[in-house]
Amino acid sequence: MNRARAAGPAVVALGGGHGLSATLSALRLMSDRLTAVVTVADDGGSSGRLRSEFGVLPPGDLRMALTALSDDSDWGRTWSDVLQHRFHSSGTLDKHAVGNLLILAVWEQLGDTVAGLDLMGQLLRARGRVLPMAAVPLAIEADVAELVPSGGPGVARTRVVRGQSAVAVAQGRIEQIRLTPADPPACPEAVAAIDAADWIVLGPGSWYTSVLPHLLVPELAAALHRTSARRCVTLNLSAETHGETDGMSLTEHLQVLHQHAPGLHIDAVIADPRAVDDVEPLIEAATELGARLLLRQVRTGDGTPHHDPLRLAAAYRDVFDDFLGDVGTRAR
Amino acid sequence: MNRARAAGPAVVALGGGHGLSATLSALRLMSDRLTAVVTVADDGGSSGRLRSEFGVLPPGDLRMALTALSDDSDWGRTWSDVLQHRFHSSGTLDKHAVGNLLILAVWEQLGDTVAGLDLMGQLLRARGRVLPMAAVPLAIEADVAELVPSGGPGVARTRVVRGQSAVAVAQGRIEQIRLTPADPPACPEAVAAIDAADWIVLGPGSWYTSVLPHLLVPELAAALHRTSARRCVTLNLSAETHGETDGMSLTEHLQVLHQHAPGLHIDAVIADPRAVDDVEPLIEAATELGARLLLRQVRTGDGTPHHDPLRLAAAYRDVFDDFLGDVGTRAR
Repeated sequence: MNRARAAGPAVVALGGGHGLSATLSALRLMSDRLTAVVTVADDGGSSGRLRSEFGVLPPGDLRMALTALSDDSDWGRTWSDVLQHRFHSSGTLDKHAVGNLLILAVWEQLGDTVAGLDLMGQLLRARGRVLPMAAVPLAIEADVAELVPSGGPGVARTRVVRGQSAVAVAQGRIEQIRLTPADPPACPEAVAAIDAADWIVLGPGSWYTSVLPHLLVPELAAALHRTSARRCVTLNLSAETHGETDGMSLTEHLQVLHQHAPGLHIDAVIADPRAVDDVEPLIEAATELGARLLLRQVRTGDGTPHHDPLRLAAAYRDVFDDFLGDVGTRAR
Repeated sequence: MNRARAAGPAVVALGGGHGLSATLSALRLMSDRLTAVVTVADDGGSSGRLRSEFGVLPPGDLRMALTALSDDSDWGRTWSDVLQHRFHSSGTLDKHAVGNLLILAVWEQLGDTVAGLDLMGQLLRARGRVLPMAAVPLAIEADVAELVPSGGPGVARTRVVRGQSAVAVAQGRIEQIRLTPADPPACPEAVAAIDAADWIVLGPGSWYTSVLPHLLVPELAAALHRTSARRCVTLNLSAETHGETDGMSLTEHLQVLHQHAPGLHIDAVIADPRAVDDVEPLIEAATELGARLLLRQVRTGDGTPHHDPLRLAAAYRDVFDDFLGDVGTRAR
């Protein structure tokens, strides 16, 4: 077995927030060749304040991805905890995440976004690389159909909701999302990683604000279409009860993905059986994308809607191994 | 030559701010067994804001000492630069030093002042240890004699100036400084380092706010008196033109030291010839403390009043070597 094989497949994980952290916590158990490509549209919380005060990429999702990849040692855990630490005071530092401030500092000091993130990765002895999906801060806007009062007459009206933090909690049904600017420059290293990958993993996560935005960055979308890598979608564990995907079934998640990236071939979809109400339409939606559906318990055993890193890693192993014999046998 | 000798003498440097950084930048060239014991009375700038917002020790002088000891490698220099970096914005983070925020974070995360500083030292691969002089934040207050208008009649009146940043720029002649609380707990590790040292180095630096405060912490003063270590005072390069030692000669610096620590035996005093107006009274003041005076050019060659690390290191070597043959021959 050569060194490259021993280090596992080259995997690029797209997403943001807790969903991407879950993916990375699983993937790190099976590969050292990981790249996280992280959404940069956040405008809320500590990230939003730094973005507004300094005009930089919002660092929060990048910080979470970095700490998810931190070395499993005293050193890695300690610095991960420090970077995840939030100040609490009655003053101006209240709720700032320490890692956000440190990422901002290395960006200002080194004058290079990617070099700064690589330095943070070295600090954490991270098992992979973390990159932004675009080289400039982005805004998300959504067309949201207002909910028609139950039993009431009339047609749903559509309004435009601007800003990731507003979209994330928008009441109503999101019909479409857009990025501002509409054609942002991608991070070149992210494009190169997608081109060189064995596998691309999308989701889980907030569907409209963490998973789909990558598909709207033109250079990233082009790379996702042309790469010879296989593509795996990891579905969420529960429908949100408030917010952007309120009441949306997993089948609809796949349909929305299809709508935002028509023509993007997906090879595999992972879903947890307890999150699936009706398996037939889900299989149908997966097949529509070109994908096989893999049903596995990937949630923790405590009843909370969180992915278990070991179970999710085993599911990825199943998916990746399932295609090992397939090389060259399927039209891409 | 055994390992301990190869690593140089065990030196404890007392001070704060730029003066302590100068000492450490020199001492690191001749020893790996360094401990900086740093003043914790600052109440201005980024440190003052953090002290007021979080009730912690002011981290700024500790940060400067840490970066002065950082490893002379790409890694050490990069992290030193990041920690010394200050934000500039029109928002609330303006002028905060990044290292101050990170020290605060490790303190909150680890819940232990010394463990946090040791972790920062590990990050910088520091060639020595940095400790606070007291376990609690201190306030400095000074009795300041107002300057009598030239040619005017009357007696100088004394007022009390409170707070390090106010004392540092007080107009008039400081007659006495005090700490609040008056009997703060010393940092036990600092006391132990003084007890175990070969040499203690005091100064250069702001005499009343960085050098003398250590002598007013009772447990620290007791250790400084009882230690078998030799003691060296490094004098400043120029009189300040505004502030706490306005117009004070180097001779008066030694007299003030004597006044604040009566009975403290000093073995050597280092002064730069260009800072000495009249050498005879300086020799006399040094002799009064029990010390030999060493005159050496220790300033940089560019005319600015900054210590040159190499020249200062060579001066320390002269001083330390000068006493090697003396062991046991002088009553202590």
